[in-house]
Amino acid sequence: MTNTQVLLTKLFFGIALIFSGLAIAQASDPLPSWHDGKAKQSIIEFVAKVTQQGSDDFVPPEQRVATFDNDGTLWSEKPVYFQLLFAIDRVKTLAPQHPDWKDKEPFASLLKGDIKAALAGGEHAMLEIVMATHPGMTTVEFEKIVKDWLATAKHPVTKRPYTEMVYQPMLELLAYLRANAFKTFVVSGGGIEFMRPWVEKVYGIPPEQVVGSSIKTRYELQDGKPVLVRLPELDFFNDKEGKPVAINQYIGRRPIAAFGNSDGDLPMLQWTTAGQGPRFALYVHHTDAKREWAYDRKSSVGRLDKGLDEAKVKGWTVVDMKQDWMVIYPFEKR
Amino acid sequence: MTNTQVLLTKLFFGIALIFSGLAIAQASDPLPSWHDGKAKQSIIEFVAKVTQQGSDDFVPPEQRVATFDNDGTLWSEKPVYFQLLFAIDRVKTLAPQHPDWKDKEPFASLLKGDIKAALAGGEHAMLEIVMATHPGMTTVEFEKIVKDWLATAKHPVTKRPYTEMVYQPMLELLAYLRANAFKTFVVSGGGIEFMRPWVEKVYGIPPEQVVGSSIKTRYELQDGKPVLVRLPELDFFNDKEGKPVAINQYIGRRPIAAFGNSDGDLPMLQWTTAGQGPRFALYVHHTDAKREWAYDRKSSVGRLDKGLDEAKVKGWTVVDMKQDWMVIYPFEKR
Repeated sequence: MTNTQVLLTKLFFGIALIFSGLAIAQASDPLPSWHDGKAKQSIIEFVAKVTQQGSDDFVPPEQRVATFDNDGTLWSEKPVYFQLLFAIDRVKTLAPQHPDWKDKEPFASLLKGDIKAALAGGEHAMLEIVMATHPGMTTVEFEKIVKDWLATAKHPVTKRPYTEMVYQPMLELLAYLRANAFKTFVVSGGGIEFMRPWVEKVYGIPPEQVVGSSIKTRYELQDGKPVLVRLPELDFFNDKEGKPVAINQYIGRRPIAAFGNSDGDLPMLQWTTAGQGPRFALYVHHTDAKREWAYDRKSSVGRLDKGLDEAKVKGWTVVDMKQDWMVIYPFEKR
Repeated sequence: MTNTQVLLTKLFFGIALIFSGLAIAQASDPLPSWHDGKAKQSIIEFVAKVTQQGSDDFVPPEQRVATFDNDGTLWSEKPVYFQLLFAIDRVKTLAPQHPDWKDKEPFASLLKGDIKAALAGGEHAMLEIVMATHPGMTTVEFEKIVKDWLATAKHPVTKRPYTEMVYQPMLELLAYLRANAFKTFVVSGGGIEFMRPWVEKVYGIPPEQVVGSSIKTRYELQDGKPVLVRLPELDFFNDKEGKPVAINQYIGRRPIAAFGNSDGDLPMLQWTTAGQGPRFALYVHHTDAKREWAYDRKSSVGRLDKGLDEAKVKGWTVVDMKQDWMVIYPFEKR
């Protein structure tokens, strides 16, 4: 490129930048589904602070890591985690190959349609259901199973596809952060391979920015073709104290902002806010029994108890779904 | 933004794009340290193929994942892996706190300066040295130890800092791929937390794009402050069949291009090339005893035996360091 070309290019880019600058200044509200209030204000103030070049609080773009829990933070989690509903559907599909399930809990209750009885065994029962349905195929096969299920399955209450039960205000928040050069990650207790097939399309988060629970896999050659076989062995349970561990393992940087909805997210929020410089922590508080669900300290799914207390003490942002969100799901906007 | 503003902005961006297009067309060789030859040609042809919009071989940018082994592929690995030399220096530093090491192998030999005798125990001895030196502190403390070591330690043969012993032609290759919208990852048998403190500066690869071996960590509160403590327990050994497993775990997409130098990388290259659509695999073959080292089928560090055979059968690119690279290290250019 000649010097004249360089100058001309710089000039044109400069003018174009001025126009796009005007466009941003004139742009409408980046969080249109959020009511004006403390929660929305705290988000916008934080983003303004860390992106203002020259200020003491400026954070270079590569360090703008934001982590989001999934169940109850980006999509609903009632009556039980959606992945568990997937596993239950798998139990029904696989039942003909497992005649012994008819007399064996938790499968017997599931096959009779009694989810509550099946889950009476608590976490152990859940793990058994997951381990009976998630391993035993290649990673490529499992991805297809998840995609096929999501394409047809409907939520028992709303009768909507599960991927429509994501929170519109949180989608806006993800987009707003990315527009400000944040890198957004999912850090969920859910299965990493249960989430990856759809989060890119639904949240705009690529598979390599998804952290989750996992089972082990084994590399082998099947008819000379390399495959990864999913094994019936837990690799990592990404909840509570596991979240900072996995964030360190997968991301290798401490987030500057973290978003959750339960006590399972508390260590992630503690870890995030304990770093130097400006930090942001936000809890989604489920307060809307009419449009979504209302639950906190006593819920077995998504319990928010200690976290609610710590948020108050530490001044973290707590979103009151009922008060702060104009709509819950994208389909309400139509 | 008014319609006129939109039009003007589009126009200016359009003109600017034409100028930058010209700049690219006129740009000098993207791989200036590579001799013209089959290896260089195969790289450029592959990149041209997958980036040509509208062609059958076009790969959308988000799927352009390229994975690089580190030891022997991006930097040297002789006389032994640099991380082992780090661990040996740590043994010397920590020896006063471990009087028993004087009479205990492999530490006794190390403290006498006899690395060869210390490593006579093979992988088991190496693991013992790593486990005696890598855990027992927080992740933040370990990062500082690594950075401090790299700032002062010198390679026993070249007397250069280790981070200068990276391959100039590979740095150019990394930059060339990224300029073509590839996302570049390190996928190494080395420790993930040994690499992350320096790869961003040296390779331009951010911590969240580093996959490696790991030990377990535990989240705890020390004086009310959250820390991650490094435990004396192996979490994952990222070599051989472990590499596709970890690629799936961390990245969640199959790479379209993979780069290695040893049999330890063979499953990664198999996994990469077994995907549909255009794929690229490359082996760095250490053939330059004068400027670097020459070794392959019989080397204990970085053995390349089966991989060399399979590369021939499958038509993978094999870089002959002596023939293909004009310079090895960046400092040779000065």
